[in-house]
Amino acid sequence: MCGNVVLVGAGNLASHLGKALYSKGYNILQVYSRTLKHATDLAHPLKASPITNIADVNTKADFIIISVTDNAIGSIVKQIPTCNAIVAHTAGSVPQTVLNKFANHGVFYPFQTFTKNKEVCYSAIPILVEGCSEKVIKALLKMGNNLSEKVISATSDQRKQLHLAAVFSCNFVNHLYTLADDLLKEAGLDFTLLMPLIKETTEKLETLSPFEAQTGPAVRDDSETINSHSTALANNNNLKNIYQTLSQGIYSKHIINNKGGE
Amino acid sequence: MCGNVVLVGAGNLASHLGKALYSKGYNILQVYSRTLKHATDLAHPLKASPITNIADVNTKADFIIISVTDNAIGSIVKQIPTCNAIVAHTAGSVPQTVLNKFANHGVFYPFQTFTKNKEVCYSAIPILVEGCSEKVIKALLKMGNNLSEKVISATSDQRKQLHLAAVFSCNFVNHLYTLADDLLKEAGLDFTLLMPLIKETTEKLETLSPFEAQTGPAVRDDSETINSHSTALANNNNLKNIYQTLSQGIYSKHIINNKGGE
Repeated sequence: MCGNVVLVGAGNLASHLGKALYSKGYNILQVYSRTLKHATDLAHPLKASPITNIADVNTKADFIIISVTDNAIGSIVKQIPTCNAIVAHTAGSVPQTVLNKFANHGVFYPFQTFTKNKEVCYSAIPILVEGCSEKVIKALLKMGNNLSEKVISATSDQRKQLHLAAVFSCNFVNHLYTLADDLLKEAGLDFTLLMPLIKETTEKLETLSPFEAQTGPAVRDDSETINSHSTALANNNNLKNIYQTLSQGIYSKHIINNKGGE
Repeated sequence: MCGNVVLVGAGNLASHLGKALYSKGYNILQVYSRTLKHATDLAHPLKASPITNIADVNTKADFIIISVTDNAIGSIVKQIPTCNAIVAHTAGSVPQTVLNKFANHGVFYPFQTFTKNKEVCYSAIPILVEGCSEKVIKALLKMGNNLSEKVISATSDQRKQLHLAAVFSCNFVNHLYTLADDLLKEAGLDFTLLMPLIKETTEKLETLSPFEAQTGPAVRDDSETINSHSTALANNNNLKNIYQTLSQGIYSKHIINNKGGE
Protein backbone atom coordinates (compact mmCIF):
# COMPACT_ATOMS: atom_id res chain seq x y z
CA MET A 1 0.00 0.00 0.00
CA CYS A 2 1.64 3.22 -1.20
CA GLY A 3 -0.72 5.79 0.33
CA ASN A 4 -3.83 7.87 -0.27
CA VAL A 5 -3.48 10.83 -2.58
CA VAL A 6 -5.60 13.88 -3.36
CA LEU A 7 -4.75 15.49 -6.70
CA VAL A 8 -5.40 19.21 -6.85
CA GLY A 9 -5.44 20.06 -10.53
CA ALA A 10 -6.38 18.19 -13.70
CA GLY A 11 -4.05 19.68 -16.31
CA ASN A 12 -1.31 17.94 -18.28
CA LEU A 13 1.11 17.48 -15.39
CA ALA A 14 -1.62 16.40 -12.95
CA SER A 15 -3.03 13.93 -15.48
CA HIS A 16 0.28 12.24 -16.25
CA LEU A 17 1.29 12.19 -12.59
CA GLY A 18 -2.11 10.89 -11.42
CA LYS A 19 -2.02 8.06 -13.94
CA ALA A 20 1.55 7.16 -13.01
CA LEU A 21 0.78 7.12 -9.28
CA TYR A 22 -2.38 5.09 -9.83
CA SER A 23 -0.51 2.54 -11.94
CA LYS A 24 2.06 2.13 -9.14
CA GLY A 25 -0.58 1.32 -6.53
CA TYR A 26 -1.38 4.70 -5.00
CA ASN A 27 -4.99 5.14 -4.00
CA ILE A 28 -6.25 8.35 -5.60
CA LEU A 29 -9.04 9.65 -3.36
CA GLN A 30 -10.06 12.82 -5.14
CA VAL A 31 -9.30 14.95 -8.16
CA TYR A 32 -10.00 18.67 -7.85
CA SER A 33 -10.64 21.03 -10.72
CA ARG A 34 -12.78 24.17 -10.90
CA THR A 35 -14.34 22.59 -13.99
CA LEU A 36 -16.40 19.48 -13.17
CA LYS A 37 -15.75 17.90 -16.57
CA HIS A 38 -11.98 18.19 -16.14
CA ALA A 39 -12.14 16.76 -12.62
CA THR A 40 -14.39 13.91 -13.77
CA ASP A 41 -12.37 13.08 -16.90
CA LEU A 42 -9.26 12.50 -14.79
CA ALA A 43 -10.96 11.08 -11.68
CA HIS A 44 -12.88 8.43 -13.57
CA PRO A 45 -9.96 6.29 -14.86
CA LEU A 46 -8.23 6.69 -11.47
CA LYS A 47 -11.35 5.50 -9.56
CA ALA A 48 -11.31 8.77 -7.61
CA SER A 49 -14.03 11.26 -6.70
CA PRO A 50 -14.16 14.48 -8.69
CA ILE A 51 -14.50 17.65 -6.59
CA THR A 52 -14.92 21.26 -7.67
CA ASN A 53 -14.86 22.90 -4.24
CA ILE A 54 -11.36 23.04 -2.82
CA ALA A 55 -12.76 23.12 0.73
CA ASP A 56 -13.96 19.53 0.12
CA VAL A 57 -10.38 18.22 -0.03
CA ASN A 58 -10.02 15.14 2.15
CA THR A 59 -7.44 16.31 4.68
CA LYS A 60 -7.03 12.76 6.00
CA ALA A 61 -5.11 11.85 2.85
CA ASP A 62 -1.43 10.93 3.10
CA PHE A 63 -0.54 13.28 0.26
CA ILE A 64 -2.19 16.35 -1.22
CA ILE A 65 -0.47 17.12 -4.50
CA ILE A 66 -1.05 20.63 -5.82
CA SER A 67 -0.49 20.61 -9.55
CA VAL A 68 -2.00 23.83 -10.90
CA THR A 69 -0.52 26.82 -12.75
CA ASP A 70 2.13 28.68 -10.74
CA ASN A 71 -0.06 31.75 -10.29
CA ALA A 72 -2.93 29.74 -8.81
CA ILE A 73 -0.91 27.97 -6.09
CA GLY A 74 -1.15 30.80 -3.55
CA SER A 75 -4.93 31.01 -3.74
CA ILE A 76 -5.34 27.21 -3.57
CA VAL A 77 -3.10 27.06 -0.48
CA LYS A 78 -5.29 29.60 1.32
CA GLN A 79 -8.38 27.50 0.71
CA ILE A 80 -7.04 24.12 1.86
CA PRO A 81 -7.58 23.69 5.62
CA THR A 82 -4.42 23.19 7.69
CA CYS A 83 -3.88 19.47 8.14
CA ASN A 84 -1.25 16.82 8.74
CA ALA A 85 -1.17 15.46 5.19
CA ILE A 86 2.03 15.94 3.25
CA VAL A 87 1.15 18.84 0.98
CA ALA A 88 3.43 19.18 -2.03
CA HIS A 89 3.34 21.27 -5.17
CA THR A 90 4.84 20.25 -8.51
CA ALA A 91 6.12 23.59 -9.80
CA GLY A 92 9.65 24.34 -10.94
CA SER A 93 9.80 28.03 -10.14
CA VAL A 94 7.72 28.29 -6.96
CA PRO A 95 9.59 28.09 -3.63
CA GLN A 96 8.64 25.53 -1.04
CA THR A 97 7.84 28.33 1.44
CA VAL A 98 4.52 29.04 -0.27
CA LEU A 99 3.30 25.93 1.59
CA ASN A 100 4.53 27.04 5.05
CA LYS A 101 1.06 26.88 6.63
CA PHE A 102 1.12 23.08 6.42
CA ALA A 103 3.05 21.18 9.09
CA ASN A 104 4.29 18.68 6.50
CA HIS A 105 5.05 20.28 3.17
CA GLY A 106 7.40 19.89 0.27
CA VAL A 107 7.90 19.90 -3.47
CA PHE A 108 7.61 17.04 -5.95
CA TYR A 109 8.81 18.31 -9.33
CA PRO A 110 8.73 15.89 -12.27
CA PHE A 111 11.06 17.52 -14.75
CA GLN A 112 9.48 16.96 -18.15
CA THR A 113 7.19 18.71 -20.63
CA PHE A 114 3.81 17.04 -20.69
CA THR A 115 1.44 17.05 -23.63
CA LYS A 116 -2.19 15.96 -23.46
CA ASN A 117 -2.81 12.51 -24.97
CA LYS A 118 0.91 11.86 -25.46
CA GLU A 119 2.26 9.10 -23.24
CA VAL A 120 5.58 9.69 -21.54
CA CYS A 121 7.91 7.13 -20.00
CA TYR A 122 7.80 8.19 -16.36
CA SER A 123 10.71 5.99 -15.31
CA ALA A 124 13.09 8.19 -17.31
CA ILE A 125 11.82 11.51 -15.93
CA PRO A 126 14.06 13.19 -13.35
CA ILE A 127 12.09 14.06 -10.20
CA LEU A 128 13.36 16.79 -7.86
CA VAL A 129 12.23 16.56 -4.27
CA GLU A 130 12.33 19.08 -1.43
CA GLY A 131 10.75 18.86 2.03
CA CYS A 132 10.37 20.83 5.24
CA SER A 133 11.59 17.86 7.32
CA GLU A 134 13.50 14.61 6.97
CA LYS A 135 10.21 12.77 7.25
CA VAL A 136 8.65 14.63 4.33
CA ILE A 137 11.77 14.34 2.19
CA LYS A 138 11.88 10.59 2.83
CA ALA A 139 8.20 10.14 1.94
CA LEU A 140 8.50 12.18 -1.26
CA LEU A 141 11.75 10.46 -2.27
CA LYS A 142 9.96 7.14 -1.82
CA MET A 143 7.09 8.32 -4.00
CA GLY A 144 9.62 9.52 -6.58
CA ASN A 145 11.50 6.23 -6.55
CA ASN A 146 8.26 4.37 -7.13
CA LEU A 147 7.84 6.28 -10.39
CA SER A 148 11.29 7.09 -11.71
CA GLU A 149 14.88 5.90 -11.83
CA LYS A 150 16.26 9.43 -11.40
CA VAL A 151 15.11 11.08 -8.17
CA ILE A 152 17.21 13.71 -6.40
CA SER A 153 16.92 16.12 -3.50
CA ALA A 154 17.20 19.73 -4.62
CA THR A 155 16.70 23.12 -3.00
CA SER A 156 14.18 25.67 -4.25
CA ASP A 157 17.06 27.67 -5.76
CA GLN A 158 18.38 24.66 -7.64
CA ARG A 159 14.91 23.81 -8.89
CA LYS A 160 14.38 27.36 -10.08
CA GLN A 161 17.68 27.33 -11.94
CA LEU A 162 16.78 23.99 -13.56
CA HIS A 163 13.46 25.44 -14.64
CA LEU A 164 15.26 28.42 -16.15
CA ALA A 165 17.63 26.06 -17.98
CA ALA A 166 14.53 24.25 -19.28
CA VAL A 167 13.12 27.47 -20.68
CA PHE A 168 16.33 27.89 -22.68
CA SER A 169 16.67 24.27 -23.79
CA CYS A 170 13.02 23.43 -24.40
CA ASN A 171 10.71 26.46 -24.76
CA PHE A 172 13.20 28.65 -26.61
CA VAL A 173 14.49 25.74 -28.67
CA ASN A 174 10.95 24.96 -29.75
CA HIS A 175 10.44 28.59 -30.75
CA LEU A 176 13.54 28.37 -32.96
CA TYR A 177 11.97 25.29 -34.59
CA THR A 178 8.86 27.40 -35.22
CA LEU A 179 10.93 30.12 -36.89
CA ALA A 180 12.76 27.52 -38.98
CA ASP A 181 9.38 26.11 -40.02
CA ASP A 182 8.31 29.61 -41.13
CA LEU A 183 11.49 30.04 -43.18
CA LEU A 184 10.98 26.70 -44.92
CA LYS A 185 7.32 27.41 -45.69
CA GLU A 186 8.39 30.70 -47.32
CA ALA A 187 10.67 28.69 -49.63
CA GLY A 188 8.07 25.98 -50.34
CA LEU A 189 10.02 23.39 -48.37
CA ASP A 190 8.81 20.97 -45.72
CA PHE A 191 9.79 20.93 -42.05
CA THR A 192 10.46 17.18 -42.22
CA LEU A 193 13.67 18.05 -44.12
CA LEU A 194 15.03 19.36 -40.81
CA MET A 195 14.21 16.32 -38.68
CA PRO A 196 17.41 14.31 -39.33
CA LEU A 197 19.48 17.40 -38.49
CA ILE A 198 17.46 18.10 -35.33
CA LYS A 199 17.83 14.48 -34.21
CA GLU A 200 21.57 14.50 -34.86
CA THR A 201 21.96 17.76 -32.93
CA THR A 202 20.30 16.07 -29.96
CA GLU A 203 22.19 12.80 -30.31
CA LYS A 204 25.55 14.56 -30.29
CA LEU A 205 24.86 15.56 -26.70
CA GLU A 206 25.23 11.92 -25.66
CA THR A 207 28.96 12.11 -26.39
CA LEU A 208 29.90 15.80 -26.53
CA SER A 209 29.17 18.76 -24.30
CA PRO A 210 27.04 21.35 -26.11
CA PHE A 211 30.01 23.73 -26.01
CA GLU A 212 32.15 21.17 -27.86
CA ALA A 213 29.33 20.34 -30.28
CA GLN A 214 28.83 23.92 -31.52
CA THR A 215 28.92 24.33 -35.31
CA GLY A 216 27.74 27.00 -37.75
CA PRO A 217 28.86 30.34 -39.18
CA ALA A 218 29.16 32.22 -35.86
CA VAL A 219 31.57 29.74 -34.26
CA ARG A 220 33.59 29.66 -37.51
CA ASP A 221 33.69 33.47 -37.40
CA ASP A 222 32.35 33.30 -40.98
CA SER A 223 31.27 36.90 -41.45
CA GLU A 224 30.45 36.42 -45.13
CA THR A 225 27.69 33.89 -44.39
CA ILE A 226 26.45 35.88 -41.39
CA ASN A 227 26.16 39.02 -43.53
CA SER A 228 24.41 37.11 -46.28
CA HIS A 229 21.92 35.69 -43.74
CA SER A 230 21.34 39.13 -42.22
CA THR A 231 20.57 40.49 -45.67
CA ALA A 232 18.14 37.65 -46.31
CA LEU A 233 16.34 38.54 -43.06
CA ALA A 234 16.36 42.30 -43.68
CA ASN A 235 12.57 42.45 -44.01
CA ASN A 236 11.85 40.51 -40.85
CA ASN A 237 12.97 42.47 -37.80
CA ASN A 238 12.02 39.76 -35.32
CA LEU A 239 14.06 37.04 -37.04
CA LYS A 240 16.93 39.39 -37.77
CA ASN A 241 17.10 40.44 -34.13
CA ILE A 242 17.10 36.83 -32.92
CA TYR A 243 19.69 35.91 -35.55
CA GLN A 244 22.03 38.70 -34.49
CA THR A 245 21.54 38.18 -30.76
CA LEU A 246 22.29 34.46 -30.91
CA SER A 247 25.15 34.81 -33.39
CA GLN A 248 26.70 37.40 -31.09
CA GLY A 249 26.16 35.05 -28.14
CA ILE A 250 27.99 32.22 -29.91
CA TYR A 251 30.75 34.56 -31.02
CA SER A 252 31.23 35.95 -27.49
CA LYS A 253 31.33 32.52 -25.91
CA HIS A 254 33.59 30.76 -28.40
CA ILE A 255 35.70 33.42 -30.13
CA ILE A 256 36.15 36.30 -27.67
CA ASN A 257 36.48 33.99 -24.67
CA ASN A 258 39.09 31.93 -26.49
CA LYS A 259 41.02 35.00 -27.62
CA GLY A 260 40.99 36.06 -23.98
CA GLY A 261 42.78 32.79 -23.20
CA GLU A 262 39.94 31.02 -21.41
CA MET B 1 30.06 1.04 -62.07
CA CYS B 2 28.91 4.28 -60.45
CA GLY B 3 31.63 6.59 -61.71
CA ASN B 4 35.03 8.08 -60.94
CA VAL B 5 35.15 10.79 -58.30
CA VAL B 6 37.72 13.36 -57.24
CA LEU B 7 37.10 14.73 -53.74
CA VAL B 8 38.33 18.25 -53.21
CA GLY B 9 38.48 18.69 -49.44
CA ALA B 10 39.09 16.37 -46.51
CA GLY B 11 37.01 17.92 -43.73
CA ASN B 12 34.01 16.44 -41.92
CA LEU B 13 31.56 16.66 -44.81
CA ALA B 14 34.10 15.43 -47.39
CA SER B 15 35.10 12.51 -45.15
CA HIS B 16 31.56 11.30 -44.52
CA LEU B 17 30.58 11.79 -48.16
CA GLY B 18 33.73 10.12 -49.48
CA LYS B 19 33.19 7.07 -47.29
CA ALA B 20 29.52 6.86 -48.26
CA LEU B 21 30.30 7.09 -51.99
CA TYR B 22 33.10 4.54 -51.69
CA SER B 23 30.83 2.11 -49.85
CA LYS B 24 28.25 2.40 -52.65
CA GLY B 25 30.75 1.48 -55.35
CA TYR B 26 32.08 4.83 -56.53
CA ASN B 27 35.72 4.81 -57.51
CA ILE B 28 37.46 7.58 -55.59
CA LEU B 29 40.42 8.67 -57.72
CA GLN B 30 41.94 11.43 -55.63
CA VAL B 31 41.50 13.33 -52.38
CA TYR B 32 42.77 16.90 -52.32
CA SER B 33 43.75 18.81 -49.21
CA ARG B 34 46.34 21.57 -48.71
CA THR B 35 47.63 19.43 -45.84
CA LEU B 36 49.20 16.16 -46.99
CA LYS B 37 48.30 14.34 -43.78
CA HIS B 38 44.62 15.26 -44.14
CA ALA B 39 44.57 14.20 -47.78
CA THR B 40 46.34 10.92 -46.97
CA ASP B 41 44.20 10.10 -43.93
CA LEU B 42 41.05 10.22 -46.03
CA ALA B 43 42.51 8.91 -49.31
CA HIS B 44 44.01 5.80 -47.73
CA PRO B 45 40.78 4.01 -46.66
CA LEU B 46 39.13 5.02 -49.95
CA LYS B 47 42.04 3.58 -51.99
CA ALA B 48 42.51 7.01 -53.59
CA SER B 49 45.59 9.14 -54.28
CA PRO B 50 46.22 12.06 -51.94
CA ILE B 51 47.06 15.33 -53.72
CA THR B 52 48.03 18.70 -52.27
CA ASN B 53 48.26 20.69 -55.51
CA ILE B 54 44.82 21.51 -56.87
CA ALA B 55 46.26 21.75 -60.42
CA ASP B 56 46.87 17.99 -60.20
CA VAL B 57 43.13 17.24 -60.15
CA ASN B 58 42.30 14.51 -62.64
CA THR B 59 39.95 16.32 -65.02
CA LYS B 60 39.01 13.04 -66.69
CA ALA B 61 36.95 12.11 -63.63
CA ASP B 62 33.17 11.81 -63.96
CA PHE B 63 32.63 13.95 -60.85
CA ILE B 64 34.74 16.55 -59.10
CA ILE B 65 33.14 17.22 -55.70
CA ILE B 66 34.26 20.44 -54.04
CA SER B 67 33.68 20.11 -50.33
CA VAL B 68 35.66 22.89 -48.66
CA THR B 69 34.65 25.86 -46.49
CA ASP B 70 32.34 28.32 -48.27
CA ASN B 71 34.99 31.04 -48.40
CA ALA B 72 37.52 28.78 -50.13
CA ILE B 73 35.27 27.64 -52.99
CA GLY B 74 35.97 30.66 -55.23
CA SER B 75 39.71 30.25 -55.05
CA ILE B 76 39.52 26.47 -55.63
CA VAL B 77 37.32 27.01 -58.69
CA LYS B 78 39.89 29.35 -60.22
CA GLN B 79 42.61 26.73 -59.88
CA ILE B 80 40.78 23.75 -61.36
CA PRO B 81 41.27 23.65 -65.15
CA THR B 82 38.08 23.85 -67.24
CA CYS B 83 36.97 20.35 -68.10
CA ASN B 84 33.95 18.22 -68.94
CA ALA B 85 33.64 16.54 -65.56
CA ILE B 86 30.53 17.30 -63.52
CA VAL B 87 31.86 19.74 -60.97
CA ALA B 88 29.63 20.14 -57.90
CA HIS B 89 30.03 21.83 -54.56
CA THR B 90 28.36 20.71 -51.33
CA ALA B 91 27.63 24.06 -49.68
CA GLY B 92 24.23 25.22 -48.43
CA SER B 93 24.67 28.95 -48.83
CA VAL B 94 26.77 29.20 -51.99
CA PRO B 95 24.93 29.66 -55.31
CA GLN B 96 25.49 27.28 -58.17
CA THR B 97 26.72 30.16 -60.34
CA VAL B 98 30.11 30.16 -58.60
CA LEU B 99 30.82 27.11 -60.79
CA ASN B 100 29.80 28.74 -64.10
CA LYS B 101 33.21 28.23 -65.72
CA PHE B 102 32.57 24.50 -65.92
CA ALA B 103 30.38 23.21 -68.77
CA ASN B 104 28.74 20.69 -66.42
CA HIS B 105 28.24 22.02 -62.95
CA GLY B 106 25.83 21.69 -60.08
CA VAL B 107 25.31 21.36 -56.35
CA PHE B 108 25.13 18.26 -54.20
CA TYR B 109 24.12 19.33 -50.69
CA PRO B 110 23.80 16.63 -48.01
CA PHE B 111 21.75 18.34 -45.34
CA GLN B 112 23.21 17.19 -42.04
CA THR B 113 25.72 18.27 -39.41
CA PHE B 114 28.81 16.10 -39.56
CA THR B 115 31.14 15.41 -36.66
CA LYS B 116 34.54 13.79 -36.97
CA ASN B 117 34.59 10.15 -35.87
CA LYS B 118 30.81 10.03 -35.39
CA GLU B 119 29.07 7.76 -37.87
CA VAL B 120 25.90 9.05 -39.47
CA CYS B 121 23.22 7.06 -41.27
CA TYR B 122 23.52 8.47 -44.79
CA SER B 123 20.30 6.88 -46.01
CA ALA B 124 18.28 9.21 -43.75
CA ILE B 125 20.06 12.41 -44.81
CA PRO B 126 18.13 14.70 -47.17
CA ILE B 127 20.22 15.58 -50.23
CA LEU B 128 19.41 18.70 -52.25
CA VAL B 129 20.52 18.69 -55.86
CA GLU B 130 20.83 21.47 -58.43
CA GLY B 131 22.37 21.38 -61.89
CA CYS B 132 23.07 23.60 -64.90
CA SER B 133 21.41 21.10 -67.25
CA GLU B 134 19.02 18.16 -67.23
CA LYS B 135 21.98 15.86 -67.75
CA VAL B 136 23.80 17.16 -64.67
CA ILE B 137 20.66 17.11 -62.52
CA LYS B 138 19.96 13.52 -63.57
CA ALA B 139 23.52 12.40 -62.77
CA LEU B 140 23.52 14.13 -59.36
CA LEU B 141 20.03 12.84 -58.49
CA LYS B 142 21.28 9.34 -59.32
CA MET B 143 24.30 9.83 -57.06
CA GLY B 144 21.97 11.11 -54.32
CA ASN B 145 19.58 8.19 -54.69
CA ASN B 146 22.49 5.79 -54.36
CA LEU B 147 23.20 7.25 -50.92
CA SER B 148 19.90 8.45 -49.47
CA GLU B 149 16.16 7.83 -49.45
CA LYS B 150 15.38 11.55 -49.49
CA VAL B 151 16.80 13.35 -52.53
CA ILE B 152 15.14 16.44 -53.99
CA SER B 153 15.82 19.07 -56.61
CA ALA B 154 16.10 22.54 -55.12
CA THR B 155 17.13 25.96 -56.38
CA SER B 156 20.01 27.94 -54.91
CA ASP B 157 17.48 30.18 -53.14
CA GLN B 158 15.67 27.24 -51.57
CA ARG B 159 18.96 25.73 -50.47
CA LYS B 160 20.04 29.02 -48.92
CA GLN B 161 16.77 29.31 -47.04
CA LEU B 162 17.13 25.71 -45.79
CA HIS B 163 20.62 26.51 -44.61
CA LEU B 164 19.30 29.54 -42.75
CA ALA B 165 16.58 27.40 -41.17
CA ALA B 166 19.33 25.00 -40.10
CA VAL B 167 21.22 27.80 -38.38
CA PHE B 168 18.11 28.49 -36.30
CA SER B 169 17.19 24.88 -35.59
CA CYS B 170 20.66 23.42 -35.10
CA ASN B 171 23.40 26.00 -34.44
CA PHE B 172 21.27 28.35 -32.34
CA VAL B 173 19.53 25.45 -30.60
CA ASN B 174 22.90 24.03 -29.63
CA HIS B 175 23.96 27.42 -28.27
CA LEU B 176 20.84 27.43 -26.06
CA TYR B 177 21.92 24.00 -24.78
CA THR B 178 25.31 25.51 -23.95
CA LEU B 179 23.68 28.32 -21.99
CA ALA B 180 21.45 25.83 -20.17
CA ASP B 181 24.55 23.81 -19.31
CA ASP B 182 26.15 26.96 -17.83
CA LEU B 183 23.05 27.66 -15.74
CA LEU B 184 23.02 24.11 -14.37
CA LYS B 185 26.74 24.16 -13.55
CA GLU B 186 26.18 27.38 -11.56
CA ALA B 187 23.59 25.50 -9.48
CA GLY B 188 25.72 22.37 -9.06
CA LEU B 189 23.41 20.34 -11.30
CA ASP B 190 24.25 18.06 -14.20
CA PHE B 191 23.31 18.56 -17.86
CA THR B 192 22.07 14.96 -18.07
CA LEU B 193 19.02 16.10 -16.06
CA LEU B 194 17.92 17.96 -19.19
CA MET B 195 18.26 15.08 -21.64
CA PRO B 196 14.78 13.54 -21.20
CA LEU B 197 13.24 16.98 -21.70
CA ILE B 198 15.36 17.68 -24.76
CA LYS B 199 14.45 14.31 -26.26
CA GLU B 200 10.75 14.84 -25.60
CA THR B 201 10.89 18.32 -27.15
CA THR B 202 12.29 16.72 -30.31
CA GLU B 203 9.91 13.75 -30.29
CA LYS B 204 6.86 16.01 -30.10
CA LEU B 205 7.75 17.27 -33.57
CA GLU B 206 6.81 13.87 -34.99
CA THR B 207 3.15 14.55 -34.21
CA LEU B 208 2.80 18.30 -33.66
CA SER B 209 3.98 21.34 -35.58
CA PRO B 210 6.49 23.35 -33.50
CA PHE B 211 3.93 26.16 -33.33
CA GLU B 212 1.40 23.78 -31.74
CA ALA B 213 4.04 22.27 -29.45
CA GLN B 214 5.07 25.59 -27.84
CA THR B 215 5.02 25.59 -24.03
CA GLY B 216 6.58 27.77 -21.33
CA PRO B 217 5.97 31.07 -19.54
CA ALA B 218 6.00 33.32 -22.65
CA VAL B 219 3.25 31.42 -24.48
CA ARG B 220 1.21 31.31 -21.24
CA ASP B 221 1.73 35.09 -20.95
CA ASP B 222 2.98 34.34 -17.41
CA SER B 223 4.60 37.66 -16.57
CA GLU B 224 5.31 36.66 -12.96
CA THR B 225 7.64 33.82 -14.00
CA ILE B 226 9.20 35.90 -16.78
CA ASN B 227 9.97 38.72 -14.32
CA SER B 228 11.36 36.27 -11.81
CA HIS B 229 13.63 34.76 -14.49
CA SER B 230 14.75 38.22 -15.65
CA THR B 231 15.69 39.07 -12.07
CA ALA B 232 17.64 35.83 -11.75
CA LEU B 233 19.57 36.77 -14.91
CA ALA B 234 20.15 40.39 -13.88
CA ASN B 235 23.92 39.92 -13.57
CA ASN B 236 24.33 38.25 -16.93
CA ASN B 237 23.56 40.67 -19.73
CA ASN B 238 24.11 38.13 -22.49
CA LEU B 239 21.65 35.59 -21.06
CA LYS B 240 19.18 38.26 -20.06
CA ASN B 241 19.22 39.71 -23.56
CA ILE B 242 18.65 36.29 -25.16
CA TYR B 243 15.93 35.50 -22.62
CA GLN B 244 14.06 38.71 -23.36
CA THR B 245 14.49 38.54 -27.14
CA LEU B 246 13.18 34.99 -27.38
CA SER B 247 10.38 35.50 -24.85
CA GLN B 248 9.28 38.53 -26.83
CA GLY B 249 9.47 36.46 -30.04
CA ILE B 250 7.20 33.77 -28.56
CA TYR B 251 4.84 36.39 -27.19
CA SER B 252 4.62 38.19 -30.54
CA LYS B 253 4.00 35.01 -32.47
CA HIS B 254 1.46 33.38 -30.17
CA ILE B 255 -0.22 36.12 -28.16
CA ILE B 256 -0.19 39.30 -30.28
CA ASN B 257 -0.86 37.40 -33.52
CA ASN B 258 -3.78 35.60 -31.90
CA LYS B 259 -5.19 38.78 -30.42
CA GLY B 260 -4.94 40.26 -33.88
CA GLY B 261 -7.22 37.46 -35.05
CA GLU B 262 -4.71 35.44 -37.05
